[in-house]
Amino acid sequence: MPHRLTTEDPDFESRFAALLTMKREDSPDVDDTVAAIIAYVRKRGDAALIELTAKFDRLELTADTLAFSDDEIDEHVARVPEDERAALELAAARIRAYHERQMPEDAQWTDEAGATLGWRWGPVDAAGLYVPGGLASYPSSVLMNAIPAKVAGVERLVVTAPTPDGKANPLVLLAARIAGVDQVLKIGGAQAIAALAYGTETVAPVDKITGPGNAYVAAAKRRVFGRVGIDMIAGPSEILVIADKDNDPDWIALDLLSQAEHDESAQSILVTTSAPLADAVAQAVEDRLLTLERRAIAAASWREYGAIIVVRDLGEAAALADQIAAEHLELCVAEPHSLAANIRHAGAMFLGKWTPEAIGDYIGGPNHVLPTARSARFSSGLSVMDFLKRTTLAHMSPAALKAIGPGAETLARSESLEAHGLSVRARLDRLNE
Amino acid sequence: MPHRLTTEDPDFESRFAALLTMKREDSPDVDDTVAAIIAYVRKRGDAALIELTAKFDRLELTADTLAFSDDEIDEHVARVPEDERAALELAAARIRAYHERQMPEDAQWTDEAGATLGWRWGPVDAAGLYVPGGLASYPSSVLMNAIPAKVAGVERLVVTAPTPDGKANPLVLLAARIAGVDQVLKIGGAQAIAALAYGTETVAPVDKITGPGNAYVAAAKRRVFGRVGIDMIAGPSEILVIADKDNDPDWIALDLLSQAEHDESAQSILVTTSAPLADAVAQAVEDRLLTLERRAIAAASWREYGAIIVVRDLGEAAALADQIAAEHLELCVAEPHSLAANIRHAGAMFLGKWTPEAIGDYIGGPNHVLPTARSARFSSGLSVMDFLKRTTLAHMSPAALKAIGPGAETLARSESLEAHGLSVRARLDRLNE
Repeated sequence: MPHRLTTEDPDFESRFAALLTMKREDSPDVDDTVAAIIAYVRKRGDAALIELTAKFDRLELTADTLAFSDDEIDEHVARVPEDERAALELAAARIRAYHERQMPEDAQWTDEAGATLGWRWGPVDAAGLYVPGGLASYPSSVLMNAIPAKVAGVERLVVTAPTPDGKANPLVLLAARIAGVDQVLKIGGAQAIAALAYGTETVAPVDKITGPGNAYVAAAKRRVFGRVGIDMIAGPSEILVIADKDNDPDWIALDLLSQAEHDESAQSILVTTSAPLADAVAQAVEDRLLTLERRAIAAASWREYGAIIVVRDLGEAAALADQIAAEHLELCVAEPHSLAANIRHAGAMFLGKWTPEAIGDYIGGPNHVLPTARSARFSSGLSVMDFLKRTTLAHMSPAALKAIGPGAETLARSESLEAHGLSVRARLDRLNE
Repeated sequence: MPHRLTTEDPDFESRFAALLTMKREDSPDVDDTVAAIIAYVRKRGDAALIELTAKFDRLELTADTLAFSDDEIDEHVARVPEDERAALELAAARIRAYHERQMPEDAQWTDEAGATLGWRWGPVDAAGLYVPGGLASYPSSVLMNAIPAKVAGVERLVVTAPTPDGKANPLVLLAARIAGVDQVLKIGGAQAIAALAYGTETVAPVDKITGPGNAYVAAAKRRVFGRVGIDMIAGPSEILVIADKDNDPDWIALDLLSQAEHDESAQSILVTTSAPLADAVAQAVEDRLLTLERRAIAAASWREYGAIIVVRDLGEAAALADQIAAEHLELCVAEPHSLAANIRHAGAMFLGKWTPEAIGDYIGGPNHVLPTARSARFSSGLSVMDFLKRTTLAHMSPAALKAIGPGAETLARSESLEAHGLSVRARLDRLNE
């Protein structure tokens, strides 16, 4: 059974705190293994990739076949049914349109002291996108990672898509092609991350690595961080649905289950002002679990981590939402915009009853790579900003230096950094000659 | 002697590559010690902070004296000379004005399908700023970290300023006051990071931790990352100066030395089109090193890691600059703006001969917390963005769901995520009733 709470429970605070801090994921310590794999790839390059791919993915490669050829991709994508191709193209167009609006602007101005200041944004030169193999090989994730990179202006975009036993996912290859990916490598695991970060004879190194992966991939990303940029390390997925009494219990049940079916560690929480709706949703979930294809996974997630919380009013709901800081937040209430205005922390909000979270996973436009495990308190979903960096600009006229230089000299001296002060003083003296 | 290269050297490429990859910092493995300290603070709270501060900083505290009182701060800041106070206030005003322009805008629009999309920025609730004790206790860094946080709208800002032997830095306390810091704690090291991340009886936990520190602080920040947000882990400072022949060698020498005097691991590089200027700067550095207060540090940095590279033209200089991706880049050339336009990677650019890098350290306006160790290829200096996070918004009208829902359903089915598809289908069926 899922956890069932009401804010009227005398022990609500402690039960809610326990719910928030439940450990939902084993983090196996694979750090030594990963360190060894990275060192091996750095030392032996392509040979290491070939050897490890044969070992872990039962796939024999050569330096010439590490990447999918255009012909191979053509052959795979030709097998994609037309409706799936059309859906992927619609999704790509909508994701592109949304992310194009995120492009930040450069700025430059001259202030009253005569200093010209500003900044300039520019893309990273090259990015690598890790796509998991097997069950969690999602074409939608290819779009969500690759399109922001391309919108940002990244020139070279490489996907690593492990291909165990040689089985490629045609939709992943099609998504890569639609998104403008330049190269798709048939490698995975920590070895793929090492190749992207350090390069090999065949794989040119990138500057930024994004994309989800298993414990080995996550550990490898942490380890190469600094050498290259990485995106967040994502935890299991979460949804919080806030619902008033006027909802179809089956819709809410399906929204909760669409997180639960991802992963046994996923967490789905319903917060509602209506005890009858709470009961009806609980029943609807059970009904759907009888037939759902992924019912084993969804049921495990729901019974272990699922929760239904009855609150007195939407003010209480908003306060709980800020404590949960959910990755996905659905507002199935009559006035979703005003409720949204009262909530500070969430990765993505889905407003109103006609906006199931699944729309955001695929086709809404906003990114589906979002902060998990309460990190929406301090971080954001993936965006074009992740593939851009900013250079600040400062230009002093002689008059500007004369106006503000003495202050810099004073502070340099107060910090006992004499050369800092002298570098300003030498120029000021020239102006006073 | 510093490294001396010209692009005409037959072995230039390999010598330049060696210069780029020189290891400039020992990273002692303090991870186990740090893990133990964090666990101890989590378990024992204030008592652990008090015990560890007595042990490492020889300072006896109680729960009541962990933070500086207003009276203590008054007393310290009263001792700050008037010119230093005025300089700090000028710096704060300029840094604030620059960072206020960085505030990103919210967005919301309705697209042709009838979907209302957008995003909303909001500040983290609370931030912690680590200020090192001892020699590297810089009031300018307090301003550079605290002001962006306050501009972002962070409600609660805590500084940890270790106070070994009870010796506080009055300028650090004044900078904290000017910047609007809410609380200054007399603790440091990994225990301070643990307290900020997890909280104790006296220290409320924060959501984001920024600020420089030693190996213990850096390891602790890495370890609490995920629980809270952190800024970058900064390496030793660097400057690249690109100079044409029309420069005063002494000015350039002082600019190079103002990085070298920070730290024996700092790196100063001059790239110039003029061999005579190269010689003159080399001599000017030696002359200045005779009398500089921090000559031992500056000389060690310059002789070990310093470099002078003569290039054929500014095009070559720009190409090298992109490979170096320097934290600080000074363009001491006749047309600095056009050279800047040809360079993609740098943390901060200082344009023209009247803009010594030290202006940027203190008073220019842009942030002085900048990406080191070539990470300007993929990351940016500190900004208000580091204290903000974005929530994406999506609202579907029934018509919008009808228009794009089927695509989501198709993609969900292609990824074998049935509940995702059903959550859309259930709503579409209602629309078709």
